[in-house]
Amino acid sequence: MRILKLTLAYDGTRFVGWQRQAEGESIQGLLEDALAKLEGTPVVVHAAGRTDAGVHALGQVASVGVTCTHDAATLARALNAHLPADVRVLSVVDETEAFHARFSARSKTYRYQIRNASIAMPFEHQYVWHLPERLSVDEMQRAAALLIGTHDFAAFRSVGGEVATTVRIITQSEWRHDAGLLTYEIAGNGFLRHMVRAIVGTLVEVGRGWRTADDIAALLSGGRRSDAGPTAPPQGLFLVRVDYD
Amino acid sequence: MRILKLTLAYDGTRFVGWQRQAEGESIQGLLEDALAKLEGTPVVVHAAGRTDAGVHALGQVASVGVTCTHDAATLARALNAHLPADVRVLSVVDETEAFHARFSARSKTYRYQIRNASIAMPFEHQYVWHLPERLSVDEMQRAAALLIGTHDFAAFRSVGGEVATTVRIITQSEWRHDAGLLTYEIAGNGFLRHMVRAIVGTLVEVGRGWRTADDIAALLSGGRRSDAGPTAPPQGLFLVRVDYD
Repeated sequence: MRILKLTLAYDGTRFVGWQRQAEGESIQGLLEDALAKLEGTPVVVHAAGRTDAGVHALGQVASVGVTCTHDAATLARALNAHLPADVRVLSVVDETEAFHARFSARSKTYRYQIRNASIAMPFEHQYVWHLPERLSVDEMQRAAALLIGTHDFAAFRSVGGEVATTVRIITQSEWRHDAGLLTYEIAGNGFLRHMVRAIVGTLVEVGRGWRTADDIAALLSGGRRSDAGPTAPPQGLFLVRVDYD
Repeated sequence: MRILKLTLAYDGTRFVGWQRQAEGESIQGLLEDALAKLEGTPVVVHAAGRTDAGVHALGQVASVGVTCTHDAATLARALNAHLPADVRVLSVVDETEAFHARFSARSKTYRYQIRNASIAMPFEHQYVWHLPERLSVDEMQRAAALLIGTHDFAAFRSVGGEVATTVRIITQSEWRHDAGLLTYEIAGNGFLRHMVRAIVGTLVEVGRGWRTADDIAALLSGGRRSDAGPTAPPQGLFLVRVDYD
């Protein structure tokens, strides 16, 4: 069977998330419906990361098996003609039969945006967590660096995701500060359910001075979810990139 | 009476425009309702420029007479607490009794954004006119420069606006090109109804090669609306700034 790798960008604001649900529009649902029109039969699409409601993507990757013979560029154009403007197929590439968007992924990169100013502009309120209070970015940076390496992230996951292990390898974890916009970027070999948002919620508590950077180290060795900070809201989160071998 | 100057930013996507209408939400309506809560009586707000449905503002200015005695910063915070996140009061300043947002304005600056690439990203589709075809920016620039000065813009207005004269003074009219984003900025002492969008629609026809830059000169001396290009769609337009003496 012909396997396609689709790279997608979407604004998650009005969707129930990546995954098809009984109620509401999902990115998976829209993409499967668009592909089914080209294929003439139902198809199932697999994503690298199942983003939640309100979470955005700059470079989500999906894989799908098809029988149609259109070239990849034609398929990208046809899919975009069927999809709404808040979901775009950025590229379509032919892959080997062994390719699977989730299981073949080597690394994923997420970004989280915080507007740290008295006012969030109307154009960004669906893409940032607005926190007007003073945050110590230096402390948040020190705490973020402690996440790099191989750790047990059980304290930073929501129940509901079935996983064999809660150990993950994090290769990048850092904050940038530019004119009141705080941007957190984290990359790793895999992420547990709500993991990035739980990390951001906890790092913000460090920035507020409610906990110290050293608390993070304790959370990484046998911490429970209730010991960590709250889950940051979805609209600040972007799936930036998925890397493959 | 105490006169306030309010500077506002808003995302026009879901509104019927600045002006209060029988149906649908308007920025004027939301702002008057928020002010009425603080005043205890109905108020009327005047804007520098009455933006249409779908048109955005980075620095709209409005004036209003009030009796309340809260300081300006408190008023700004209170208004933002009453307004939805897609309308923000950026500042409140006390003005003299003679101040009127529209009649005192010396100059207004508008910006129009065109995404000139095969794909418009999901995050920008409500803020750009998406034109995938090749455009000659050099020709558009040459045509834009001809608008600077004192001209009769009768060919670039929609009927419905009652005005004493269709002569306006344009002080800036130029395109910028940055990585597939074409940005047009125009400043002047006043603008007729749909004038910026009619100018952009006409300049795009120049960019497509459907008309020459010299056509613009002809339109400025006795041209009719039907001689000019179509009205560009609203979502690419931003009221950037209003200047006063």
